[in-house]
Amino acid sequence: MTAVAPSNLAFIKYWGKVDDNLNLPANSSISMNLSGLTTTTTVDFDNQYKSDLVIIDGKKDEKESLRVTLHLDRIRKSAKIKLKARVVSQSNFPASTGLSSSASGFAALTLSASTAAGLKLTEKELSILARQASGSACRSIPSGFVEWKKGQTSNESFAYSLYPPYWWDLIDVVLVLSDGKKVVSTTDGQKLAFSSPFFTNRLERLESKIKKLKKSLAEKDFSGFGVLVENEALELHAVMLTSIPSLIYLHPETLFFMQEVTKWRKEGLEAYFSLNTGQALHILCQSKDLVRVKQKLAGFRNIKKIIINRPAGGAGIITSHLF
Amino acid sequence: MTAVAPSNLAFIKYWGKVDDNLNLPANSSISMNLSGLTTTTTVDFDNQYKSDLVIIDGKKDEKESLRVTLHLDRIRKSAKIKLKARVVSQSNFPASTGLSSSASGFAALTLSASTAAGLKLTEKELSILARQASGSACRSIPSGFVEWKKGQTSNESFAYSLYPPYWWDLIDVVLVLSDGKKVVSTTDGQKLAFSSPFFTNRLERLESKIKKLKKSLAEKDFSGFGVLVENEALELHAVMLTSIPSLIYLHPETLFFMQEVTKWRKEGLEAYFSLNTGQALHILCQSKDLVRVKQKLAGFRNIKKIIINRPAGGAGIITSHLF
Repeated sequence: MTAVAPSNLAFIKYWGKVDDNLNLPANSSISMNLSGLTTTTTVDFDNQYKSDLVIIDGKKDEKESLRVTLHLDRIRKSAKIKLKARVVSQSNFPASTGLSSSASGFAALTLSASTAAGLKLTEKELSILARQASGSACRSIPSGFVEWKKGQTSNESFAYSLYPPYWWDLIDVVLVLSDGKKVVSTTDGQKLAFSSPFFTNRLERLESKIKKLKKSLAEKDFSGFGVLVENEALELHAVMLTSIPSLIYLHPETLFFMQEVTKWRKEGLEAYFSLNTGQALHILCQSKDLVRVKQKLAGFRNIKKIIINRPAGGAGIITSHLF
Repeated sequence: MTAVAPSNLAFIKYWGKVDDNLNLPANSSISMNLSGLTTTTTVDFDNQYKSDLVIIDGKKDEKESLRVTLHLDRIRKSAKIKLKARVVSQSNFPASTGLSSSASGFAALTLSASTAAGLKLTEKELSILARQASGSACRSIPSGFVEWKKGQTSNESFAYSLYPPYWWDLIDVVLVLSDGKKVVSTTDGQKLAFSSPFFTNRLERLESKIKKLKKSLAEKDFSGFGVLVENEALELHAVMLTSIPSLIYLHPETLFFMQEVTKWRKEGLEAYFSLNTGQALHILCQSKDLVRVKQKLAGFRNIKKIIINRPAGGAGIITSHLF
C-alpha cells in the first residue's frame, strides 16, 4: 500500500509540547501543504518478515527505524495484527534541512500503514494518529490551508482544512542553501521551548496571533499575512536563541537571504520569508510576482536548490508509482 | 586639548530608553573598557572659527557634525563661552560595525571639550555629560569594569568603576568580518525596543541578571560569567528580531563565527561570544587561552581584522600626540 503526503509550512509555528509522549502542543498552529515537497511511502505487512524492515531515502537508519516501528506498533494494536512490515519511504527533498521531512514522512506512513493494516480511518483519526508519531505530521493529512487545534486530550488534538489549495494562489519558494544537516534535532530542540524566558509571553499572545492570521487568510490580505508570517518566524527563532542552552538554527546563508528578501521589499517586490528549524529559507510571494522572485535569485551561486511550491492537497493513497 | 577614550563591551546591554532627549536608559548596564579600540579627539575653542569644524576619521560628516555641535553647545552653556571649535577625532577601528565608536568618540569629546572650555568636571559629572551625547559613552569615562546605574533623573544616571582593569585578565578578541556598515543606526534601533513583545519581560528580569553578573565578576567565575554574557547577547538580538519592524543586525559571517565558538567549547576551549548592533563579533576568553583562540582563527580567510583587547582604563587627557 502506497501513500504520498506533502510537507507543510507553518505560518503559526508549533514549538513546545505539554505532553511529550502524545505530542500535545503548547499552542494551536496554522500551515499550508507544499506541492513540491512530498514523501511517498509503501508499507507491506507480511508474515515473511521477522522484524520491521525500514528503508528511508534508500538507506537503513536505526534511529528513524525505531520511530517507524513505534508508529507501526500503534497501528498494529488498533488493527489487532502482529505482522511485521517492510517500509520503503522516499522524499523528493533532503532531510534535516528545515523542510519538515518528518511531517510528510509520518503523514504518508500513517495513511499507507493504516490502510495496509485494514483500518479505515477518518481524516480526523488519521490526523490524530500521525500527530503521535510527529506533531507536525498531523497537518499534512488534511488538504490545503490547515489548522491544528491544540486540544486538551489526544482525541481533541488534530488538524483540519481551513481552505482548499485553490483558495489562494500563494507561492512558497524554498531555497536549499547548503549540504549541512542540523546539529540538534527538532524533537530535542522542542524540549527546550519552556526554558526560554520569553516562551510564556509568546503563548499568551498566540490566540490573538492566530485570529489575525486567519483573518488575513480569509481576506487574502497578502501584506497583512506576510508581516505576520515573517514576525512569527523571527519570534520562533528569538525563543530558540534564548533557550537554555541556546538553540541557534539560523545558518549564515539563511541570514543572507533573509536580508535579501527585506531589500527586495524596499525595492517594491513584495515577498516575505519564513523559517523552520534548519537552513532552508521559505520565501512567500504572490503568483504574479514569481517571475521577479526567480530573476532576483538567478544571480546567486550559493543556492543549492530552488523548489517552487503551491498550496497542495493532503495525504492520499496512490495506486501506481515508481520506485 | 586632546583626550583619548576606549570603546567598551557591554556584558549587560543598554537597549531601550525611557527618555530620548536625556538618554535615560530603561535598565542599568555593565561593561568593560577595551584596550585595543580607542578614539583620540582634539578640541580647540578659538575666535578664529566662524562655526564648528568637525573632522571625524579624516572626513566631514554632516550628521555626526550635528551631534558633535549639539554636545559642544551643552559644554559651552556650562562654561559660559560662545567660541566655536575645531574638533578632530580619530578612531583606530572602523565605525558602524558594532564596535561602539560613538561610545569612545563621545567620551573623548566630552573630556577634551570640557577641559578645553575650562570646566573642571569630576568623573561623575563627565559621565553624566557624555551620556547625554551617546548613552554608552558614559561607560567609557570610568576605568576598567563599569556599571551604569540607570537612575531616575539625569544626575542619577552615570557610570562608575566596579573594578580596575587589572582585576581580571579577561581577553576580548574582536573579529571585524566585513566592510559592511549597519543599515539602521543604533540610535534609530533603540527607539524600537519597546515594540518587542518580549521587552517588558526582559526588563523585569534585569536586576536579577545584573546581580548574577556582578557575582561572577567578583568571584572571577569565568564559566558562569561566559554563559551569562552570551545569553545576554542572544537575548538582545531576540528582542531586536521581534521588534516591529524587525531589526536584523546579525550578519551571515557573524553567525558563522558564533557557531564556531560554540564548537570550540565542545572541544574543550572555553570561549564565549558577545554581540552589539553590528557585524563585529566579540570572543571572550581567559588570558591563558588566547594562543589557542588565535590558532583556531588562523585558518579562516573571511576575517578582515582581529583586534585583541584587554580591560582598559577610562578616558584620559593626553599631552602629546601625533596627527
